Amino acid sequence: MRLLLINPNISDSVSALIGAEARRSASPGTEIQVLTAPFGVAYIETRFEALAGAWATAQLAAEHHAGCDAVVVAAFGDPGLTALREVLPVPVTGLTEAALASAHLLGQRIGVIAISQRIRAWYREVIESYGFGSRLAGIRALDRPLSGIGSVQEEHAQALQDLAERAVDEDGADVLILAGAPLAGLARTLAGRLPVPVVDGVSSAVRHAETLAALKPGRALRGSFSLPPEKPNGGLPPAIEALLRRR
Amino acid sequence: MRLLLINPNISDSVSALIGAEARRSASPGTEIQVLTAPFGVAYIETRFEALAGAWATAQLAAEHHAGCDAVVVAAFGDPGLTALREVLPVPVTGLTEAALASAHLLGQRIGVIAISQRIRAWYREVIESYGFGSRLAGIRALDRPLSGIGSVQEEHAQALQDLAERAVDEDGADVLILAGAPLAGLARTLAGRLPVPVVDGVSSAVRHAETLAALKPGRALRGSFSLPPEKPNGGLPPAIEALLRRR
Amino acid sequence: MRLLLINPNISDSVSALIGAEARRSASPGTEIQVLTAPFGVAYIETRFEALAGAWATAQLAAEHHAGCDAVVVAAFGDPGLTALREVLPVPVTGLTEAALASAHLLGQRIGVIAISQRIRAWYREVIESYGFGSRLAGIRALDRPLSGIGSVQEEHAQALQDLAERAVDEDGADVLILAGAPLAGLARTLAGRLPVPVVDGVSSAVRHAETLAALKPGRALRGSFSLPPEKPNGGLPPAIEALLRRR
Amino acid sequence: MRLLLINPNISDSVSALIGAEARRSASPGTEIQVLTAPFGVAYIETRFEALAGAWATAQLAAEHHAGCDAVVVAAFGDPGLTALREVLPVPVTGLTEAALASAHLLGQRIGVIAISQRIRAWYREVIESYGFGSRLAGIRALDRPLSGIGSVQEEHAQALQDLAERAVDEDGADVLILAGAPLAGLARTLAGRLPVPVVDGVSSAVRHAETLAALKPGRALRGSFSLPPEKPNGGLPPAIEALLRRR
Amino acid sequence: MRLLLINPNISDSVSALIGAEARRSASPGTEIQVLTAPFGVAYIETRFEALAGAWATAQLAAEHHAGCDAVVVAAFGDPGLTALREVLPVPVTGLTEAALASAHLLGQRIGVIAISQRIRAWYREVIESYGFGSRLAGIRALDRPLSGIGSVQEEHAQALQDLAERAVDEDGADVLILAGAPLAGLARTLAGRLPVPVVDGVSSAVRHAETLAALKPGRALRGSFSLPPEKPNGGLPPAIEALLRRR
Amino acid sequence: MRLLLINPNISDSVSALIGAEARRSASPGTEIQVLTAPFGVAYIETRFEALAGAWATAQLAAEHHAGCDAVVVAAFGDPGLTALREVLPVPVTGLTEAALASAHLLGQRIGVIAISQRIRAWYREVIESYGFGSRLAGIRALDRPLSGIGSVQEEHAQALQDLAERAVDEDGADVLILAGAPLAGLARTLAGRLPVPVVDGVSSAVRHAETLAALKPGRALRGSFSLPPEKPNGGLPPAIEALLRRR
Repeated sequence: MRLLLINPNISDSVSALIGAEARRSASPGTEIQVLTAPFGVAYIETRFEALAGAWATAQLAAEHHAGCDAVVVAAFGDPGLTALREVLPVPVTGLTEAALASAHLLGQRIGVIAISQRIRAWYREVIESYGFGSRLAGIRALDRPLSGIGSVQEEHAQALQDLAERAVDEDGADVLILAGAPLAGLARTLAGRLPVPVVDGVSSAVRHAETLAALKPGRALRGSFSLPPEKPNGGLPPAIEALLRRR
Repeated sequence: MRLLLINPNISDSVSALIGAEARRSASPGTEIQVLTAPFGVAYIETRFEALAGAWATAQLAAEHHAGCDAVVVAAFGDPGLTALREVLPVPVTGLTEAALASAHLLGQRIGVIAISQRIRAWYREVIESYGFGSRLAGIRALDRPLSGIGSVQEEHAQALQDLAERAVDEDGADVLILAGAPLAGLARTLAGRLPVPVVDGVSSAVRHAETLAALKPGRALRGSFSLPPEKPNGGLPPAIEALLRRR
Repeated sequence: MRLLLINPNISDSVSALIGAEARRSASPGTEIQVLTAPFGVAYIETRFEALAGAWATAQLAAEHHAGCDAVVVAAFGDPGLTALREVLPVPVTGLTEAALASAHLLGQRIGVIAISQRIRAWYREVIESYGFGSRLAGIRALDRPLSGIGSVQEEHAQALQDLAERAVDEDGADVLILAGAPLAGLARTLAGRLPVPVVDGVSSAVRHAETLAALKPGRALRGSFSLPPEKPNGGLPPAIEALLRRR
Repeated sequence: MRLLLINPNISDSVSALIGAEARRSASPGTEIQVLTAPFGVAYIETRFEALAGAWATAQLAAEHHAGCDAVVVAAFGDPGLTALREVLPVPVTGLTEAALASAHLLGQRIGVIAISQRIRAWYREVIESYGFGSRLAGIRALDRPLSGIGSVQEEHAQALQDLAERAVDEDGADVLILAGAPLAGLARTLAGRLPVPVVDGVSSAVRHAETLAALKPGRALRGSFSLPPEKPNGGLPPAIEALLRRR
Repeated sequence: MRLLLINPNISDSVSALIGAEARRSASPGTEIQVLTAPFGVAYIETRFEALAGAWATAQLAAEHHAGCDAVVVAAFGDPGLTALREVLPVPVTGLTEAALASAHLLGQRIGVIAISQRIRAWYREVIESYGFGSRLAGIRALDRPLSGIGSVQEEHAQALQDLAERAVDEDGADVLILAGAPLAGLARTLAGRLPVPVVDGVSSAVRHAETLAALKPGRALRGSFSLPPEKPNGGLPPAIEALLRRR
Repeated sequence: MRLLLINPNISDSVSALIGAEARRSASPGTEIQVLTAPFGVAYIETRFEALAGAWATAQLAAEHHAGCDAVVVAAFGDPGLTALREVLPVPVTGLTEAALASAHLLGQRIGVIAISQRIRAWYREVIESYGFGSRLAGIRALDRPLSGIGSVQEEHAQALQDLAERAVDEDGADVLILAGAPLAGLARTLAGRLPVPVVDGVSSAVRHAETLAALKPGRALRGSFSLPPEKPNGGLPPAIEALLRRR
């Protein structure tokens, strides 16, 4: 099985974290490919940055999905995910969606730990758009500036653990999501040191992508995730234009 | 006052409809400029098409907002609206958001009339993302293929009126929105022939944009609609890069 | 254009504030008339006081709407608004409804600043009845007694600004409403001193009333805002009885 | 124990129905007094009519509650109920609130049978304002004009039973409320002829009022149902003014 | 009238509290029988403990309901209540359901005071399953270990009163529920010492059970609370098997 | 890896269906054990039947979980699942929870196809208790009696396919769940014959259980899914008593 993970940020250091955790999590025989967005920002925290990341992800997915069994949008917030689900011929998931699926299987109220205050509003909107608003215990975030996006885990280890404790004790979280690709793998590090089950977006996405590819649930030929109706288009990148022409 | 309306679709015929209704609706002294997306599809009905339209809209807004008092995303579904609100220095609204604001002032339960079955899922998600799910009486749509996107009103006049009647009598709508830029101006035509107040997205957006520009409510310096935090970026179109650098 | 604003409270000093802000906000050529409730309380904070104010407003509206293009219920909480929408032949709005419409165009989560603790429960119920519960970041209020209802702004300026800051930083408000007619005009004073856009009920209501009158969306002939069905009545004030007989 | 039931409509024939069912339902030793609104309409179906009825009810309650152990607003829709709860020194309930309390104890999803199409929107808003929206299976209503408000049960017996059957089979109702004072006592008549438990507003209100009076849960001295804060008032009917002065 | 109260816990001391408050609350002529679960735990705080208590309650109800006019599940959280409603031939209620019905008649936002931190999650889920989530002001609980389940009231009197004050002042509760059978009767003790009306589960359940028995709303012959469809079963306790066979 | 699947029904024929689909779906090296409830009913459709099945499942899980890597409650509706999650030392999931997790990854609105009308109310309550109410497009069910629970698929193949088509076209489902263990494996049979992706509870549960066992998210030591607090118990089956004693 071959999985394509697309980092919608332009940070190669984060792509490396994603790739490492993805390979640790994958089943034997699963091949992992990680691509980094050719344009956008170092780390998506807002709706506008997510829009840029979504478009970059769409282009990479259009160009590189051939031969893959599933595609993963490898940023929490899932930029472009539901759009891509309409046009890609293989299953596609994202870190938020996948982490929520895992957390849903482990507890009732879900706490999210994030790396910046600003990111909280966007995360909340995405989680609510998936209908998980009533499951959300809260989103807690670091409140100091990040010196480097690839080294968040090391620099803020204690602060992240403190946030996790408070999510359990003050927000009533039964399960935690360590949110954002820069935290990829941290759940593994903290194993046994947190009072509730902890979910990682990358490993969840890899495993759920494998499951979707294995279960072969079928394609949408009707409904809101089937291919957009045929119609004139113009000015689109060729790979995207090809996706829309596929039938 | 000068308003910039951006049609996220590539259809010049729809831009013409938009411009005509905008000019009929604007207050004396308001200047209307309409731009058409340089890439994308003829008419946005799905999440993926909205993503393309959002990115095209962002580029046009970045390049052309200078000198404008407000910007309007001139498609129902508002592709890119909340993203643009973070980065533009002037107020920005969209046809859905503006039509909902008008409808909210006219009745409790809002019926939406749309031009295709497929478009309903996307519209519903946008309306729910604005928190208007409990106000929505339903979305009814034409169910025959459209021969031309610029001539929907003429070809389907009776069918649209029938949908409106059923929205009132079967769905309990107190007020109707004729949704989608291709229906721009239809509310004016049907005036007096429908049993409840009828709202048009373009005229609502023009009037509300004027109001926002006049009331001068101030810019977001903090909160989730302030400018994204400074950070490295790369590969972005220069006008967009300039928006992110603006401080 | 002529707008009738009805203050459901018996406080002439508040009517003066309302009138001043309404005239500052109105478009050129709009004439503003402000009436004060002939019975009721100095400042409505509760459901019972709102009931008295609603009935007083209904009587004033019935007696004085002739010749007006729109009517505004000029108290936050909108006493009697949805009832009057059924029977008046012109558009009618209220400070809460109008402020929410403006705030909806400026941000996702809305913070409300109010002038007393007691008023919060009633405000919340009204906002939720409009379906805006999920948009509400919170309601923060002064917690000291008011020495005079017409001088709240001067006496509590700093406290109001502090509440606004906390609504943004602690509640996550993207936009603020300064709620209650006694705060009419304060948004104008605080312009540039608050970190997010600020909305005033009176100016919003005046502008939206102008818009409704200009767009001419049509009357409700069916649905829940059409005239109540004909039936025997008795003992009603003549102007109200005349409204029910109008067909 | 003495209960005061106030019919917010001006129909003596409906007051007679209310009184008859109240007396059949009351515990031994409970005395029932029924008053009819001195002004208003024959049968409340809309928000405006409810406003008139609420004000009439408030005046009667203010004038006549002395010596009563509890007060019942004896119309479905409960005009003025939450307002009166702030100012009366005894428990107060209404037909909708009480019927919902009973239905809540008998099933999960509640079907409402009403006497006119128009009344449905107002009923729905009241039920939702009590937080019972998710319990509501639906509201079904007669769709023919009523020749007399005091004889609905006889003239429409079969139609009402048919609506009840459809509420169970098509809407999934586990329990039914026969809504509106004109249907007072019908539940008793239909006993054994409907497939699910049936609740009557008048008998529920009488029994729940007795329970509240017996349990003596205490008065609200703080919170949103305590007396409105002291403040100037003017022009109010003396009995109402006295309620506000009571401390 | 004869009411059967079943304590789903194995604590005889709590059964004694329940019985005492039930007898104080019952109408003249109502006979109270209290049974204690033959297996389970001393005090139910979690979903698993509730499952054990529900099954024990079901067995007692099946064996002992003959001759009773109504059955009460006498633990807050109502273990097994909705299940029993499907199979018992008489009305059945529980402490949570009944307390919510009373509180619903006394205020809009309901505060719950509980005896342990752990119990809060389960209580919340039960309250939300009844659709009362939007009415819930919050659940506050003792945070110290209980030395004996039958003496909570005496040992923690001041702490419980403090929690009640905070529920009103910080959570905005209009009415309070003292939750859990170990607090049975406490509302009576605190009468006049709390700032809002206070509801007790046992007395509410006794009174509402009497009301249901008196109103005779009829049995569910269809819908989701009618008897489960006939089908093979096996291995069940004889009294339960007899309930399923009853038709 | 070793998975324990517990059929809460007493039907060996359904256990055989479950085991067959589980083995087809499991990853290489996963061992599947299926147990059948020793008491209860042939097929759970209601809350009471679910209570019996939950208690039977708890006993089997307590007696047989040793040596397993995860446990699956193998009935749609998940009787006892959240209770067991508190006390078992290994991950536990159920058919509904797992099918929803899969469906969540494949579409926005989820349609459920069930085998009897009666079962719909219980399914809906379970799905809503997981917070998936807003994702639910609807539950459609067979409306003819089942001659044998082990042969539903063969006898009702065409009817089930028709229900699926209507769920897509009339309810707007993007993805379908074929609900109930008697339909185990049907998704595989219908592959390619339905217009949207189709999810099976058994295969989803097996795959998600494998994922949970592989990701090792950690145990709940605090929060609402940690072990119930220590306290006296009595009369419990020894294996269950041992679970509560485990620390």
